Amino acid sequence: MNFSSKLLENAVEEFSKLPGVGKKTALRLVLHLLKSTSAEVHQFSNSLTTLKDNIKYCEKCHNISDEVICEICSAPKRDNSIICVVEDTRDVMAIENTHQFQGLYHVLNGLISPMDGVGPGDLTIESLVKRVQHEDVQEVIFALSANMEGDTTIFYLHKKLKDFNIKISTIARGIAFGGEIEYADEITLGRSIATRVPYENTLIR
Amino acid sequence: MNFSSKLLENAVEEFSKLPGVGKKTALRLVLHLLKSTSAEVHQFSNSLTTLKDNIKYCEKCHNISDEVICEICSAPKRDNSIICVVEDTRDVMAIENTHQFQGLYHVLNGLISPMDGVGPGDLTIESLVKRVQHEDVQEVIFALSANMEGDTTIFYLHKKLKDFNIKISTIARGIAFGGEIEYADEITLGRSIATRVPYENTLIR
Repeated sequence: MNFSSKLLENAVEEFSKLPGVGKKTALRLVLHLLKSTSAEVHQFSNSLTTLKDNIKYCEKCHNISDEVICEICSAPKRDNSIICVVEDTRDVMAIENTHQFQGLYHVLNGLISPMDGVGPGDLTIESLVKRVQHEDVQEVIFALSANMEGDTTIFYLHKKLKDFNIKISTIARGIAFGGEIEYADEITLGRSIATRVPYENTLIR
Repeated sequence: MNFSSKLLENAVEEFSKLPGVGKKTALRLVLHLLKSTSAEVHQFSNSLTTLKDNIKYCEKCHNISDEVICEICSAPKRDNSIICVVEDTRDVMAIENTHQFQGLYHVLNGLISPMDGVGPGDLTIESLVKRVQHEDVQEVIFALSANMEGDTTIFYLHKKLKDFNIKISTIARGIAFGGEIEYADEITLGRSIATRVPYENTLIR
């Protein structure tokens, strides 16, 4: 691409570093911002630097937070005895949206992935072990992606936690609601038969 | 969406104002930036404010430029007698990439679109008329999108320019190279038959 302006090229270069944003999309986005008022552009870019400079991570669950201890961890009504282990803040938001979980979270900030150079030390695993040791935890639920990285992480976490006297569970895998059996992949279908549940249990809610 | 941080919510809000970026994509992009170093985030956001604060538009062709007169308008080898009229800087870049055009450009900064409240006064039309009046222009080529807004703009421009002693042309419409005739839409196919060209002309290059 031949840009008519070095400044334009710089901005496009920066935007195209974002995941899933190519040069053409970056140019479209930058030209859109260029049509906004100066105040709007400054607001846009301030929102990012303010976020980066002032963001905190909850000292207990490591979720993104404006306070030292996040809203969920400090809520008096939540069940302190259950910890749901997730990869990042998006998973917390997704589970919170279901309104089905009243316990606390633990955000790993990634999954073990030797291919990407992410080892157990890069995640908040030690802090999870400490929580199980020192807090009144009775159950840990793994809500991690059903892929190689997720399975590896669960395997590792299970080894670390299995000697504590707690219940360890993972979220159910199976055919999604609205999903058609004939289109389901074999692994999911196979597992959903192997881990079938008594019909009466499905009538709850 | 329930965000665990107001700062995060603000940044996502700003990103989701961009065209084609929804809340979920915005969150993905913001979380990506949050994983970058502070220096990278500042560089990203500075590239935008610097662009917005320092951007110039060429006084002659209105293309985005770092100088008062852009590189193309000031290039001594270009043909001053032909002006190619385009919607925005992306079109200039696309045509420059073909290496088929050696004249100058005129960037309208939009198309006439009553539905979006864009009238002739919002575009750089007066400036184009002045260029045709005062410069040694022999031909104006319209390279505008083949849609309602493009056609309206060409119609208006033609009315403004037709009394000057210049050649007025539009880029050829037809079946794209590699395009299959059976899949072409009727209007394009119909026009490409009506505006057929002598076979010998197509042998040039």
